[in-house]
Amino acid sequence: MVILTLNCGSSSAKYQVYDWDNKDVLAVGIVERIGLEYSTIEQKSTGKEVYEARFSSPTHMEAIQLVLKMLVDEKYGCIKSLDEIGAVGHRVLHGGEYFKKSTLVTDEVIEKLKEIIPLGPLHMPANIMGIEVARKLMPNVPQAIVMDTAWHQTMEEAAFMYAVPYSWYKDYNVRRYGFHGTSHLYCAKRAAVLLGKENKDTNVIIMHIGNGASGCAVKNGVCIDTSMGLTPLEGLVMGSRSGDMDPAIIPYMCKNLGVTPAEMDTLLNKKSGLIGICGKSDRRDVHTAALEGDKLAQLGIDMEIHRIKKYIGAYAALLGRVDAVVFTAGVGEMGDHIRKGALSGLENFGIKLDEKKNALSHCRNTETCISADDSPVKIFVIPTDEELVMTEDAFALMNGTYDIHTNFHYTFESPDYVNKARARGLVENLKKTPELESIIAHPVRK
Amino acid sequence: MVILTLNCGSSSAKYQVYDWDNKDVLAVGIVERIGLEYSTIEQKSTGKEVYEARFSSPTHMEAIQLVLKMLVDEKYGCIKSLDEIGAVGHRVLHGGEYFKKSTLVTDEVIEKLKEIIPLGPLHMPANIMGIEVARKLMPNVPQAIVMDTAWHQTMEEAAFMYAVPYSWYKDYNVRRYGFHGTSHLYCAKRAAVLLGKENKDTNVIIMHIGNGASGCAVKNGVCIDTSMGLTPLEGLVMGSRSGDMDPAIIPYMCKNLGVTPAEMDTLLNKKSGLIGICGKSDRRDVHTAALEGDKLAQLGIDMEIHRIKKYIGAYAALLGRVDAVVFTAGVGEMGDHIRKGALSGLENFGIKLDEKKNALSHCRNTETCISADDSPVKIFVIPTDEELVMTEDAFALMNGTYDIHTNFHYTFESPDYVNKARARGLVENLKKTPELESIIAHPVRK
Repeated sequence: MVILTLNCGSSSAKYQVYDWDNKDVLAVGIVERIGLEYSTIEQKSTGKEVYEARFSSPTHMEAIQLVLKMLVDEKYGCIKSLDEIGAVGHRVLHGGEYFKKSTLVTDEVIEKLKEIIPLGPLHMPANIMGIEVARKLMPNVPQAIVMDTAWHQTMEEAAFMYAVPYSWYKDYNVRRYGFHGTSHLYCAKRAAVLLGKENKDTNVIIMHIGNGASGCAVKNGVCIDTSMGLTPLEGLVMGSRSGDMDPAIIPYMCKNLGVTPAEMDTLLNKKSGLIGICGKSDRRDVHTAALEGDKLAQLGIDMEIHRIKKYIGAYAALLGRVDAVVFTAGVGEMGDHIRKGALSGLENFGIKLDEKKNALSHCRNTETCISADDSPVKIFVIPTDEELVMTEDAFALMNGTYDIHTNFHYTFESPDYVNKARARGLVENLKKTPELESIIAHPVRK
Repeated sequence: MVILTLNCGSSSAKYQVYDWDNKDVLAVGIVERIGLEYSTIEQKSTGKEVYEARFSSPTHMEAIQLVLKMLVDEKYGCIKSLDEIGAVGHRVLHGGEYFKKSTLVTDEVIEKLKEIIPLGPLHMPANIMGIEVARKLMPNVPQAIVMDTAWHQTMEEAAFMYAVPYSWYKDYNVRRYGFHGTSHLYCAKRAAVLLGKENKDTNVIIMHIGNGASGCAVKNGVCIDTSMGLTPLEGLVMGSRSGDMDPAIIPYMCKNLGVTPAEMDTLLNKKSGLIGICGKSDRRDVHTAALEGDKLAQLGIDMEIHRIKKYIGAYAALLGRVDAVVFTAGVGEMGDHIRKGALSGLENFGIKLDEKKNALSHCRNTETCISADDSPVKIFVIPTDEELVMTEDAFALMNGTYDIHTNFHYTFESPDYVNKARARGLVENLKKTPELESIIAHPVRK
């Protein structure tokens, strides 16, 4: 049996096929440019040629139809029949206050998701469309939704409430929800494995830094605070999003620029962050430019580092005791200069980076430990795996064995867990030089 | 010679007369309800009856005229002639990027202040009016402006820039300025005295918590970060201001409520913070309500504590080494329950509160040390004295001896400094019980 995971964005659909019996990824793929004059697909199945094509996909319907066709394609596919698909796991941005854990899709669930659209107007319609199309095309296959917000539902009121009129919460659901939940869940539980601790005894700070970026404070195995809020705009400096700012800037600049609040929302989501500061959002481009003397690119990096460091400190204060700091996602895994800046000067808090180890760790398929040998707080780089969380939730929901994460055991919580696809090089591989071997993080066996 | 300080708000004018030769406060007073159907004045001169009256003051002109009259009043006043006034120090909210230190008023200075009005539309017109009226009524007396933002001008770009389009900084001066600067300056320098360290070697975190509230990270004696931003709206949970929030809440709620950005600005400044959460902004009322079982009042307190703790952690991370945490202003000086919550669980960072000492410290005229005897980081409660900073700046500017704070020595930087007015009980007095004596913070003499 395989589990299909689908992550539908406004104009894209990412997917992965997971062989449940062999615990291995069979294929990954992405459709892009949905709704534009032509769409593209790229699919990579183990042992097969990469399939790339242009096609017409006015809606997510045509996209998912092609995906299902190519999964069983003899030359490029990975399964013989769609009957092998045991369940589909859909990534959903926002669960509002309805969904505190992953859930099987019913008509009622879809109605509730539609109610939540105002909380995620850019993402939710595409998420819902993906679910509806998948239900139509695979009517007999259980469909599960996995919310980016669910992991954060353990936050207490003092952490999730904003100091705005209380009626905004009651009438319009204004509160901190947090995002990147599946990634934070994965990293928190992997950190516990690497520390050799029970989840319930583990305190970690997770920095998920990709184009979007969020921090998470995990106390006794559950989220107690996170940097994203009602939407993914708040918190760290991101590729194109502002993160934290004086809210008064919005009325001030609406007036100065003569723009509406909705237009301002777009400026803060699409034209701010690193792209706002230095015109580039890809951190590799920003880094290269900074090295070549671009002062605004350097400023962008310095701002990003400054903000990450503040969040590490803030979360350390909330936790009281920190077992590990975890970096994940593209920049977290690859950007050793960002990690170095953010972690410098924290020795008094027991956080001691080994700069040599840090410089060696820029890889997307191996967990590494980059703290000094005598650092009381471990520093891990953990390649995240949101699809695996979605896969396991979807399987367990279909199988009737699912429960909220505090009562549920994921396969990757075993010290013996190996990500076979990565070991095989599905994601860009890494030469296992002796230097690299020296920093690999090994699970502590209890 | 005396120095007059004036703090003109939109409908008020606070003032203080300081006897420079004897280093003592001669009178304090406040005019309120300026521009309303009637105005009020209350003036308290040492050794005289309190003067209270209603009068007509359509503008700040009539208010300041009455103030000057009452200062020389035989029954209620404190000086014989206005000729005794050597200089006037005016509190000004915003110095923009023009004023990095206190400055003598000239026509050109007033023109620049007028340019900055858009950065502080609620405060700047009143500030400027106060200056202009004082110049008119005392044409031969040097007038000095003391900006709330000046102290924070040592921040580096990475700390003061927002991750928004860079042109917003260039064209509209959008950046973090920070406020409560004279208070943070006073507390930073007093903390150095109490620690027995040179300013340049002193790292402190200051929490100025009154109706408005801001935190400040001071490294090597200068500000490196602060929680208020372009305006005083950002940062901590305040009496009626939201502090930090997801910026996306603004467009979301503008749409839901059908309000303009300008109306939203008012809601976030006047109807948010504690008053938004529980309907009360005075922290004593909030505390009483919480003790009586009001859950929203308790939530407000918990949110305030949560936010303060995060800032303490964030600033500790920026500083690397913290010598002291300082609480000041109404809530910081009086609210032991807030301090206790914010400082709990920070032992791993060397911040160890003595709960008994903390419970004893709620006084507005004595500096106390409330950390445990073995706490590596000291915790001080320092009654702030913004007027004294204004007084000394005004005197030194008039005298030609003024310089930026890193090159200037204030009288209160001496271990022998005593605030005579407070010792005399100008501010509400405190019985010097043996318990209180045990927590008084004494300067460490080098």
